[in-house]
Amino acid sequence: MTRLNVTRKLIESHLLSGRMEPGEEIGLAIDQTLTQDATGTLVMLEFEAMQIGRVRTELSAQYVDHNLLQEDFKNPDDHLFLQSACRKFGAWFSPAGNGVSHPVHQECFGMPGKTLVGSDSHTPAAGALSMFAIGAGGLEVALAMAGKPLYLNMPKVVGVELTGELPDWVSAKDVVLEMLRRFDVKGGVGRVFEYYGPGLDALSAMDRHVIANMGTEMGATTSVFPADSEVKRFLERQQRGDAWQELLADDGADYDEHVVLDLSTLEPLIALPSSPGNVKPVREVAGEEIYQAYVGSSANPGFRDFAVPAMMAEGRRIPPGVSFDVNPTSRQILENLASHGYLSRLIRAGARLHQAGCNGCIGMGQAPATGRNSLRTVPRNFPGRSGTPEDRVFLCSPETATAAALTGRIADPRELDMAYPRFEEPERLAINREMLVPPAEDSGLVELIKGPNVKSLPDFEPIPAEFAGPVMLKLGDDVSTDEIMPAGAEVLPLRSNIPAIADYVFRAVDPDFSQRAKALDGDGFFLVAGRNYGQGSSREHAAIAPRYLGLRAVCAISYGRIHRQNLANFGVVPLTFANPDDLDACDQDDELVLDDVVAALGKGDEVTLHNRTKEQRYTLHHDLSKRQIDMIRFGSLINLVREET
Amino acid sequence: MTRLNVTRKLIESHLLSGRMEPGEEIGLAIDQTLTQDATGTLVMLEFEAMQIGRVRTELSAQYVDHNLLQEDFKNPDDHLFLQSACRKFGAWFSPAGNGVSHPVHQECFGMPGKTLVGSDSHTPAAGALSMFAIGAGGLEVALAMAGKPLYLNMPKVVGVELTGELPDWVSAKDVVLEMLRRFDVKGGVGRVFEYYGPGLDALSAMDRHVIANMGTEMGATTSVFPADSEVKRFLERQQRGDAWQELLADDGADYDEHVVLDLSTLEPLIALPSSPGNVKPVREVAGEEIYQAYVGSSANPGFRDFAVPAMMAEGRRIPPGVSFDVNPTSRQILENLASHGYLSRLIRAGARLHQAGCNGCIGMGQAPATGRNSLRTVPRNFPGRSGTPEDRVFLCSPETATAAALTGRIADPRELDMAYPRFEEPERLAINREMLVPPAEDSGLVELIKGPNVKSLPDFEPIPAEFAGPVMLKLGDDVSTDEIMPAGAEVLPLRSNIPAIADYVFRAVDPDFSQRAKALDGDGFFLVAGRNYGQGSSREHAAIAPRYLGLRAVCAISYGRIHRQNLANFGVVPLTFANPDDLDACDQDDELVLDDVVAALGKGDEVTLHNRTKEQRYTLHHDLSKRQIDMIRFGSLINLVREET
Repeated sequence: MTRLNVTRKLIESHLLSGRMEPGEEIGLAIDQTLTQDATGTLVMLEFEAMQIGRVRTELSAQYVDHNLLQEDFKNPDDHLFLQSACRKFGAWFSPAGNGVSHPVHQECFGMPGKTLVGSDSHTPAAGALSMFAIGAGGLEVALAMAGKPLYLNMPKVVGVELTGELPDWVSAKDVVLEMLRRFDVKGGVGRVFEYYGPGLDALSAMDRHVIANMGTEMGATTSVFPADSEVKRFLERQQRGDAWQELLADDGADYDEHVVLDLSTLEPLIALPSSPGNVKPVREVAGEEIYQAYVGSSANPGFRDFAVPAMMAEGRRIPPGVSFDVNPTSRQILENLASHGYLSRLIRAGARLHQAGCNGCIGMGQAPATGRNSLRTVPRNFPGRSGTPEDRVFLCSPETATAAALTGRIADPRELDMAYPRFEEPERLAINREMLVPPAEDSGLVELIKGPNVKSLPDFEPIPAEFAGPVMLKLGDDVSTDEIMPAGAEVLPLRSNIPAIADYVFRAVDPDFSQRAKALDGDGFFLVAGRNYGQGSSREHAAIAPRYLGLRAVCAISYGRIHRQNLANFGVVPLTFANPDDLDACDQDDELVLDDVVAALGKGDEVTLHNRTKEQRYTLHHDLSKRQIDMIRFGSLINLVREET
Repeated sequence: MTRLNVTRKLIESHLLSGRMEPGEEIGLAIDQTLTQDATGTLVMLEFEAMQIGRVRTELSAQYVDHNLLQEDFKNPDDHLFLQSACRKFGAWFSPAGNGVSHPVHQECFGMPGKTLVGSDSHTPAAGALSMFAIGAGGLEVALAMAGKPLYLNMPKVVGVELTGELPDWVSAKDVVLEMLRRFDVKGGVGRVFEYYGPGLDALSAMDRHVIANMGTEMGATTSVFPADSEVKRFLERQQRGDAWQELLADDGADYDEHVVLDLSTLEPLIALPSSPGNVKPVREVAGEEIYQAYVGSSANPGFRDFAVPAMMAEGRRIPPGVSFDVNPTSRQILENLASHGYLSRLIRAGARLHQAGCNGCIGMGQAPATGRNSLRTVPRNFPGRSGTPEDRVFLCSPETATAAALTGRIADPRELDMAYPRFEEPERLAINREMLVPPAEDSGLVELIKGPNVKSLPDFEPIPAEFAGPVMLKLGDDVSTDEIMPAGAEVLPLRSNIPAIADYVFRAVDPDFSQRAKALDGDGFFLVAGRNYGQGSSREHAAIAPRYLGLRAVCAISYGRIHRQNLANFGVVPLTFANPDDLDACDQDDELVLDDVVAALGKGDEVTLHNRTKEQRYTLHHDLSKRQIDMIRFGSLINLVREET
């Protein structure tokens, strides 16, 4: 008999389809969903378009933690929309000021043994409570809310055995930085990191959150911890002892791969600019001047992650010219920091206190000055993510960030002239869930509140039996979703407004694109492209917005994987040239025809494309699944779900 | 013998030129200056260009409180520049996180009997400590830093006699709202409001700050309070008892005008959208639903302005959908709110805590949702100032804002089911000035830190003896400084970068303007305009940036007063057509010539302009003072100051 690890137990108990063989597609039942405001508006619009009524999960929670700056009406309008959507659809709503989704979810809703899908890449943090938690695209989350399975490839399970005890000045962040040093940013792809062993005993549930959160930085499917007595203690402290159930690996459980990490050998580590995988011991870069030290974010969200800096800073002063930015995780942690005296110590020492939320971690404020070093406890230091182009952001523990704040230089905290402050969690911490809004009991009469920038998702018609249209644009190789649908300060605020954002489609490639497309009056068009069309960011808008303008089929040599899926999801036929030379024969404005394409897709992997202008016929391939063909048949995955309900 | 009021004592003790007759120009010696970051970068660049070396005031202080959002490198680069400028020029530096300039200045530097000029319109708040404090343009502040007098017209002094005692639930904000109800937004023009009488006894120094601060909203030159025992108590509490000196009006002092305000007759008041003068009793608008209640800003900055809301909110909860935004005034107040237990009460009740600073008061975040009501303790509710176009912002006391937060509706706080919380200031409040950076002793070697967006002020050459150039643009009547130099999110961040901001000059009128001007290769040009040229905002960039592009003279029918002064300050000759019909004769691209213009300006009020293209000669007038002609002679006021030093 196989001795199961926690990951396989979690998967097995939720398996709806597929075999638990690494690489095989599996379908999982989803118990909970998590959305944040930057992605959640589209999720809610998609859920609205599915016409499902109420969510079919055990629990869905919507957080407002990303777009907190509110420089005009768009963000606050989005917040009101999300609150009304939660009332209408039966989800919990956590308003602006309540804090960062992942740790708040852990405190309020996390439950061992459950599955969670979230429209945020750090959703795997919930693995700290022995959940199987996956970050996914908005539409996948909307589907989960509609009670549909989540499909993914069965991952390998890497057993990470933790032995030994953490030395002074070394904490959970250093554990995951050591993992990043070993695995780099791709080493987790197709894998789940499952932590076990005696070293776990000294890691609190929030320490485990730190480690699970940044599994994402290794490309891992997720990270998983057992539900042991520490998880029980954590849930009891949160007055949710009922949510606990033990979930441990079987003795001598099997793992696909195996790693040992002796905590006693660790030292303070730091990820240098500009990759989370670029990890070195802090002592190797000590001495460099800093501009900023930053504590907070979902990658160091615990009470101790602020209390230890407060104890370190007590009676000391931040030197002039250093910005010590403190970003409280949540309302509850902020309240406890204030009432237990930690907050005043931080402020007195010179910290700059910000609102509870994601803030600078996602480039919403606190950008560093040009060319200056910023040490942060956040999960990512991709180039420019701070808001400053060519920034110099380092990732480290709260201890290392605070050591830098106090000395004005990158400093190994072991070199500070002080004893390691032993943090003891106060016996009674205030529980503050007052501002969480529960789902309304009866939501029949609730109206969605849509400000001028929130528009319902357009309704997409199925492709006509004979579809004819022009080549609106002929594109080269490696066209990214950034070229299809740009991001940036001007465009991002339009994410809940497909008609408005569509005006930016291909803006950099052809400024007249959307006007030309609209001139067709909805008759539809083709795009023709080379290799790797739609590479890069997974943004759904790169499929939805061109579809809104009339895109019905793409003929390319090859595709970025996720973009091809997104095209099919929104009813666009993604085809590949059987003979790549045929691409050369097609030109912009050529009139193309697809005859009875849905039937053709169902019959095999070949489709014939007629170029009326050149009087040529090309053979194109597809590798759409039956379900994807159905999406095209009905016009979109959303229509299909509506049909199935 | 005249019995002097406090205002006249302050003016008399600093009078350098002019007579103390209302309307006459007087020159005052300036003891202190105040700058904030939004205006301060240009002030420091102007001071640098004057080549004065060190500030010649008793004290100059630079605050960072406006541009705190730091979405990219520009704001933090500005902060570093300002800090280096303070070191180099001998000013105090208050970094981001220290709080709002006016209350921090009152706590740390305010001193009875002194004069203060600040590049912020709420500088008059310092009148609370019996200072003569004036808001002014950046260049005037730079001149004051250089030891030059401030010129203004001698104001009338309005004696405001306060009698009676404030009823429960009525506080300082209601006093100034009552003043606004009586005087509206123009009633203070050319006037100083001097408060006196028995009603003063119950108004703390920070309460007086509230009233002096919003004197600006009535257009007042400034507001003045006596330096009485309450000012002594305040300074002693701030551990600055040495700064105190008594300054009272003579018994039976004369005032130019007189008002009596019986405090006991007041009730909670509120300024409706969208003017601070649109004041009504709260009870008349009670019941309207709100989206947001906002406490903080320089218009309600005192410890009690947060402590009273905390006492009101204790044990209660903000209803879902209401944003209760708390904006702490300063590091010191935030620390004391945290350590005296007020902060945790606010957070627990559902407040959203923001960083210490100006924040939403100046549209930096916290914009309300579309069409929703926002109650704020800030000084202004001009349309769109919140960031949301067509916003609905109401101005009120902290008591009224909190009553709305707790009920979700505009509510007269007297109708709440609670006793008025009697606030007693704690015996010992922490003093936190640790983060204030004193001026460097020896600044010879300090380098100014200029990020890529901070450029030294261009050097402006004097106008040539014979100046010939084309009419670059012919403009109509009422051209505003907004048309000359637009504001907005794209342009404002370039305020420290004249070469970059110059590209936006006349952008809406003629998108090619700056390109056409640059094509002249510095040879210079004329502008021709109708009536009221340069009306509107006083922004100096509307003179500097066209001057940078080559503007040397404007020929108009009439001018906005401040813009004409700004033109002269930057060496541009502002002329008026003696015969308005001559304007019709001039066309764009006509070649105009001014012969020996500086000499001509000195000889009388007439100048001859030769239109070479049309072969016409026009008579133009000027009313430049001798000093303004000198500015033009040397190329700019800055050059003149450099010459005089």
